[in-house]
Amino acid sequence: MQLTQSRGPRSRAEGERRSRADGARSREAILRGATELATLEGLEGLSIGGLADHIGMSKSGLYAHFGSKEELQLATIEKAQEIFDMEVARLALEQPEGIARVLGMSDAYLSYLERRVFPGGCFFAAAGAEFATREGRVRQKLQEFAAEGMRALADTIRSAQERGEIDAAADADQLAFEIDALLHGANAGFLISGDREPLDRASRAIRDRLGVRET
Amino acid sequence: MQLTQSRGPRSRAEGERRSRADGARSREAILRGATELATLEGLEGLSIGGLADHIGMSKSGLYAHFGSKEELQLATIEKAQEIFDMEVARLALEQPEGIARVLGMSDAYLSYLERRVFPGGCFFAAAGAEFATREGRVRQKLQEFAAEGMRALADTIRSAQERGEIDAAADADQLAFEIDALLHGANAGFLISGDREPLDRASRAIRDRLGVRET
Repeated sequence: MQLTQSRGPRSRAEGERRSRADGARSREAILRGATELATLEGLEGLSIGGLADHIGMSKSGLYAHFGSKEELQLATIEKAQEIFDMEVARLALEQPEGIARVLGMSDAYLSYLERRVFPGGCFFAAAGAEFATREGRVRQKLQEFAAEGMRALADTIRSAQERGEIDAAADADQLAFEIDALLHGANAGFLISGDREPLDRASRAIRDRLGVRET
Repeated sequence: MQLTQSRGPRSRAEGERRSRADGARSREAILRGATELATLEGLEGLSIGGLADHIGMSKSGLYAHFGSKEELQLATIEKAQEIFDMEVARLALEQPEGIARVLGMSDAYLSYLERRVFPGGCFFAAAGAEFATREGRVRQKLQEFAAEGMRALADTIRSAQERGEIDAAADADQLAFEIDALLHGANAGFLISGDREPLDRASRAIRDRLGVRET
């Protein structure tokens, strides 16, 4: 969406493209369009032809960047990961270590949903569900991202436990699962209802679970 | 999957089809195949042509049952709802009213995931995510199902509160959101990891949240 807006009508975009020799910037713009399309149409629905239509580029131009659909899918996931890092992980890391960072992670994720960074909700929730019954490199990459996210959350919880901010007797992996599930529920509820109530409920549940008074 | 297994090879299935005049039974079998295909390929990916291939029927035979893709999608959701009622709601209703039925609902849902009633996980979680950014009758039907499920869970919680089995001061709608989110997290985690740990974690979290000792 940002891509097509900043480019204006297709004829102008084509003129700009011809006059621009910056391949890296073009790849960046292509992949941003791909992440948007993937949350709307599905990552499997992301064909070179469909993407060419979506961003107003020729199919042959796209083939110069990505040799196959799988390559395009893998590059799209990497781009989505970059956006996620920028929009969620970076904000969480601005918080001091400990329970503030646990809350920072969940608040940044809820804000990422509310701001509709991806028009079809969480990119990784959508793609993970879509590739659950498929095999191959795309699924593996999505699995790794999910496992890494869960590990990062559990490590942050453990760090808060070491500081005495979360009960040391709590099972950090279990707590990470619960927070992750509440965020998943917020994504699903927000998407299906179009209402922000599920975001508020998740925030309340996570604070309640961590023994933090609501702000 | 059940459908193709019980039918055997396609040539035999075709023979059976020709000799069978039972349109209702055939519609039932078609829709069962459609619910399976929808959780694998997506409800939007459910074309009359694709379904014809999946169940070994002619496209014209399918058109006799469903005039359009939207009609097929709506009928598929109704079929999935029947299966859900049979595999989840019915089991929950076998439990006595109160907290036993709240646990019955969540246990039946976790068992429905574990038994892979639909090969691609919860039909309604997958379809809800897929139609989140679309408009129309299909999305509306999915929204109604999600809202009804949440209402039924909250009502069951309220009934347990009236019996003094759940803290009367708890917000039943909030608690329903949390249980639903934990079940969503179990579905997502089970699908992406292929491991049953998320099912156990959800069960533990729900019992913990309700103040029930683990069995």
